[in-house]
Amino acid sequence: MKAIVVHGPKDLRIEDRAEDVPGAGEVRLRLAVGGVCGSDLHYYNHGGFGAVRLREPMILGHEVSAHVEVLGPGVEGLAIGDLVAVSPSRPCRSCRYCQQGLHNQCLNMRFYGSAMPFPHIQGAFREVLVADAQQCVPAAGLTPGEAALAEPLAVALHATRRAGEMLGKRVLVTGCGPIGVLAILAARRAGAAEIIATDLSDFMLSLARTAGADRVINTKDQPDALAPYSADKGSFDVLYECSGAAPALAAGIAALRPRGVIVQLGLGGDMSLPMMAITAKELELRGSFRFHEEFATGVGLMQRGLIDVKPLITHTLPLSEAVTAFELANDRGLAMKTQIAFS
Amino acid sequence: MKAIVVHGPKDLRIEDRAEDVPGAGEVRLRLAVGGVCGSDLHYYNHGGFGAVRLREPMILGHEVSAHVEVLGPGVEGLAIGDLVAVSPSRPCRSCRYCQQGLHNQCLNMRFYGSAMPFPHIQGAFREVLVADAQQCVPAAGLTPGEAALAEPLAVALHATRRAGEMLGKRVLVTGCGPIGVLAILAARRAGAAEIIATDLSDFMLSLARTAGADRVINTKDQPDALAPYSADKGSFDVLYECSGAAPALAAGIAALRPRGVIVQLGLGGDMSLPMMAITAKELELRGSFRFHEEFATGVGLMQRGLIDVKPLITHTLPLSEAVTAFELANDRGLAMKTQIAFS
Amino acid sequence: MKAIVVHGPKDLRIEDRAEDVPGAGEVRLRLAVGGVCGSDLHYYNHGGFGAVRLREPMILGHEVSAHVEVLGPGVEGLAIGDLVAVSPSRPCRSCRYCQQGLHNQCLNMRFYGSAMPFPHIQGAFREVLVADAQQCVPAAGLTPGEAALAEPLAVALHATRRAGEMLGKRVLVTGCGPIGVLAILAARRAGAAEIIATDLSDFMLSLARTAGADRVINTKDQPDALAPYSADKGSFDVLYECSGAAPALAAGIAALRPRGVIVQLGLGGDMSLPMMAITAKELELRGSFRFHEEFATGVGLMQRGLIDVKPLITHTLPLSEAVTAFELANDRGLAMKTQIAFS
Amino acid sequence: MKAIVVHGPKDLRIEDRAEDVPGAGEVRLRLAVGGVCGSDLHYYNHGGFGAVRLREPMILGHEVSAHVEVLGPGVEGLAIGDLVAVSPSRPCRSCRYCQQGLHNQCLNMRFYGSAMPFPHIQGAFREVLVADAQQCVPAAGLTPGEAALAEPLAVALHATRRAGEMLGKRVLVTGCGPIGVLAILAARRAGAAEIIATDLSDFMLSLARTAGADRVINTKDQPDALAPYSADKGSFDVLYECSGAAPALAAGIAALRPRGVIVQLGLGGDMSLPMMAITAKELELRGSFRFHEEFATGVGLMQRGLIDVKPLITHTLPLSEAVTAFELANDRGLAMKTQIAFS
Repeated sequence: MKAIVVHGPKDLRIEDRAEDVPGAGEVRLRLAVGGVCGSDLHYYNHGGFGAVRLREPMILGHEVSAHVEVLGPGVEGLAIGDLVAVSPSRPCRSCRYCQQGLHNQCLNMRFYGSAMPFPHIQGAFREVLVADAQQCVPAAGLTPGEAALAEPLAVALHATRRAGEMLGKRVLVTGCGPIGVLAILAARRAGAAEIIATDLSDFMLSLARTAGADRVINTKDQPDALAPYSADKGSFDVLYECSGAAPALAAGIAALRPRGVIVQLGLGGDMSLPMMAITAKELELRGSFRFHEEFATGVGLMQRGLIDVKPLITHTLPLSEAVTAFELANDRGLAMKTQIAFS
Repeated sequence: MKAIVVHGPKDLRIEDRAEDVPGAGEVRLRLAVGGVCGSDLHYYNHGGFGAVRLREPMILGHEVSAHVEVLGPGVEGLAIGDLVAVSPSRPCRSCRYCQQGLHNQCLNMRFYGSAMPFPHIQGAFREVLVADAQQCVPAAGLTPGEAALAEPLAVALHATRRAGEMLGKRVLVTGCGPIGVLAILAARRAGAAEIIATDLSDFMLSLARTAGADRVINTKDQPDALAPYSADKGSFDVLYECSGAAPALAAGIAALRPRGVIVQLGLGGDMSLPMMAITAKELELRGSFRFHEEFATGVGLMQRGLIDVKPLITHTLPLSEAVTAFELANDRGLAMKTQIAFS
Repeated sequence: MKAIVVHGPKDLRIEDRAEDVPGAGEVRLRLAVGGVCGSDLHYYNHGGFGAVRLREPMILGHEVSAHVEVLGPGVEGLAIGDLVAVSPSRPCRSCRYCQQGLHNQCLNMRFYGSAMPFPHIQGAFREVLVADAQQCVPAAGLTPGEAALAEPLAVALHATRRAGEMLGKRVLVTGCGPIGVLAILAARRAGAAEIIATDLSDFMLSLARTAGADRVINTKDQPDALAPYSADKGSFDVLYECSGAAPALAAGIAALRPRGVIVQLGLGGDMSLPMMAITAKELELRGSFRFHEEFATGVGLMQRGLIDVKPLITHTLPLSEAVTAFELANDRGLAMKTQIAFS
Repeated sequence: MKAIVVHGPKDLRIEDRAEDVPGAGEVRLRLAVGGVCGSDLHYYNHGGFGAVRLREPMILGHEVSAHVEVLGPGVEGLAIGDLVAVSPSRPCRSCRYCQQGLHNQCLNMRFYGSAMPFPHIQGAFREVLVADAQQCVPAAGLTPGEAALAEPLAVALHATRRAGEMLGKRVLVTGCGPIGVLAILAARRAGAAEIIATDLSDFMLSLARTAGADRVINTKDQPDALAPYSADKGSFDVLYECSGAAPALAAGIAALRPRGVIVQLGLGGDMSLPMMAITAKELELRGSFRFHEEFATGVGLMQRGLIDVKPLITHTLPLSEAVTAFELANDRGLAMKTQIAFS
């Protein structure tokens, strides 16, 4: 079977790999669709991010859907042929944090396509994947493309739960890549009354608008557009910071009302924080990392038609054009979510 | 001007009353629509509820919309002709609880159409009403009927905030009168993944279904339909108890999962509680009473099309047929929300 | 070795039982002290409580301390001779609720001395006990009697965490048996500013006072003493209901301020609840059941001298006088916590 | 009467000022004791902090106790001769934030001795002070020195409530000036199980130890002493950051466990934040600003002997030696809290 392997910056290859055999509690899956994510792009563009660097070739990918092909011993609740959304997250379920219900903080996490540990955890962009049955959420009624968006949707849903009460709230989203737009969908689903979104790309903002943002602002063209929201100590209850850019964070903080909440998404380096405003307005900055039960929650919400992620999928390319897909995914003026069709 | 006055059980009269003059910060309103509420019906059917009894004639009504007719001195933010939803709640803004932000617990509350204090607080079912400008929320874009539903919608939104986290949750609603159905709309808006509703009336349940309940159960026909939800300590995360009936509460508690939340709505008398289940499953029973900022929140959500209350309005009668309207409102097999058109 | 076995109401026997051998991860313990708890008394006095009835002889007891005698294979962190507080709680660590961190809601819980499942879970009142090493919390510096109070202290600490914010709060405790008095200690440790306690026994109240209650009220002598606390919608922020008596619950609810919290401890039957007050004051009634990490927390707080439970231990009798110990424990005018010395 | 007036950096003068006359709801107070605070020192040393600069002479001081001398019309609950702790905080009680119970965020706040608005709000270091009766909390049983510590104690109590659940928690305090040491007292009062404190001054750390810190670390001498606490993603549940120093913040963040809480106290400028750790460990950084009801809470806790602030008062000088008092307060190797006796 073929897999998409990164060897170094701008060195992406489609290679043959041996197929695994499913053990007890495992299933063999035939991949349907895989979405290219920001961290995949970091490996592809730069060979890593921050202190995390590629030290051996690694199969990329962790946003995938698949069809069940073989059931290992003891597997229940899945049938051959089922379309499933595959969670890339395999916590140990027994460490201190798993036992506290914080599986996303597992001390022994195996998460597809990660160069943090060595040997690296190989990813899911491969024609045939063996996974734990627990990673597979049945996705009947969804397209394979939608099912492959379950992973980033789960990130946005987890962030929304981290944000706290949302019903009737005013929300600012800075950065409208896929996570930002999914945050708009999640915030709206959770009852946000008003959502304003900012970005530097009109294309990204047009999809933010489609996703339900009540107003979109291109801060390149309108650098002061948020200023009026800062009157009387600020307007927004919640800020989803999805840009990783210090100016966006600072502008958002100025526009947050006292006791407002900042959810910091994505993995940046050190950032300069206007601590005076944090203290004086008693803001809360909350990290949000991956997800746990929100993966299945997201599949369910999509199945019931309560969240529609389809407009995010701007491009779908065959496996043979994987390199083109990665280049497309790099272009914020053209592509929101680029997916690769494996079958 | 004419007003709808209750003199005692089944003694409802349309009477002439003098018009008030708006003072500083007040407006004179011409009533558009008024909805008949459960507490109005208690006064009409029984002359009160619990220890609260009519001791003098009282104008009924607290679910109203109106058009602004005259602005008193110093009023800003409203214009003559505006359609407004009128909040029946006038807290003092200075007592201990108001200063804590708990305006619905105001020690000096004046709430339209209440016989709790004496002299009674006269209600809003009158052609001309003088109100504080702060009670008036502009409702442009809504029909007068929708605007008159802002009050019970606020009750459901407040209850939903009391219920806590809702995104992706499984919800049970027992009792599908207007508050129950509005709770369905509010829970869905706040992100509930699955909503099951019970009642004894197929008509009420049909509107619960329209409002978005995923499954409805007539517990008269299917008394054991909730039993499967009680397996493994229970299924639901949240119970909105809107029936005031002890059997519904007990069945709901059995179907709640550990740490589940019961929001108790409506004003019943003493109820028998299965305390063993409350303790052993560590359930939380939370009272919810009226609303505060949720009144404006609800108007905004309706204006943005995020909540649609129109299907609840099953009947609208002219002021001259007020008695018929009250009788209709009594009939749970026929009427969900009955409104009276004042102009 | 000898064990304390209940055969039916008022039929308590000291019998010989075979000693178990510790397996992997287990230890063999020589019991030091065991405290008689309310549920032990229910089995002794009535053969059970509610629907839970003895169906076979059962060793009682779940409040125990012991010395480590033999380490099974693979045990770390314990040494022979260590004094340990032994948690009676053995959750499965893998069911749905354990994986959510709610180990006290484990679907497969084995809790010492419980007749809920059949065969019953045998208790810990035996000279030699084999336990999981995870159940054993080193208790160096404590007396064996204090260590044996770790279990009910954990119940009170868990309830205090369920109660929520405590710093500077006004607290009412109704019922001053061991759990009530431990709740006083826990509430004070958590920062309660004012604590009022009620009971029908002057003896119990004298120990409540020793534990730090600012005022104690014998509601037999002063039935209306709580009434002044009900002015202006109420005074207390938190009610620990430890009596299981409906009048105490009703009086406490009347004295709670809006948004006050009731923590319901102990396992009673159905109770009549003044639902009108729950709703109108938006009170929260929260069940609290056993404990999890609070067991180790309590041992640590005792070791640092931050909680002193010694005054609760009113009587200590040798194993040979177990029946006398149970009769003493029944006498609320004489005994707070009766313990049995096993060695 | 005499007042302590700052004219610019290192230009502090004792000057005569006219006495005010108490109006309705006000009292005239004769100052007892005033404590020198960090913000007073900023004005004295640098003429301000950040963007806040002295633009006219300003009476300093906001940590004061006093005796009631004259009651204005309508004042209840105070008597001539009473010792009172005087809150420097005078919120408007009617703006948006006051109405939400967030009085410390009042849009029209008048807080003693602040150069943020112009004209500046004159401070409380004066022999005679006219204040609202609402600012005065009776402090019978306290020494005037203790009563004058009610203000910084309130800051620490507010921060502790911002920190959330404290019972049984592990706490790190970085920076052991008066606020850090009061945070130790508050955290312990709220149930913290283990408290570690760091500073660069052995003198400050000796008082941290007296206040109840279980371990103190001089990070000048032992720069790596916190490293072991960072194993397995970290150890502490709560970090009170009271140093304003980026290295202390970074070291504290490394030692926090997943979902740990950082309470940021004090008013610094921009700070560099290790955002990767915030995100990946899902930490929460919460600003804490001043206080509201915690002022009276703190007085009550001191009166009941539940918090003892007396060891913090290292020096008390007469009004005539005010300049010496300010210089002493500058010396972190010698003085914790320096107070000025006005009478």
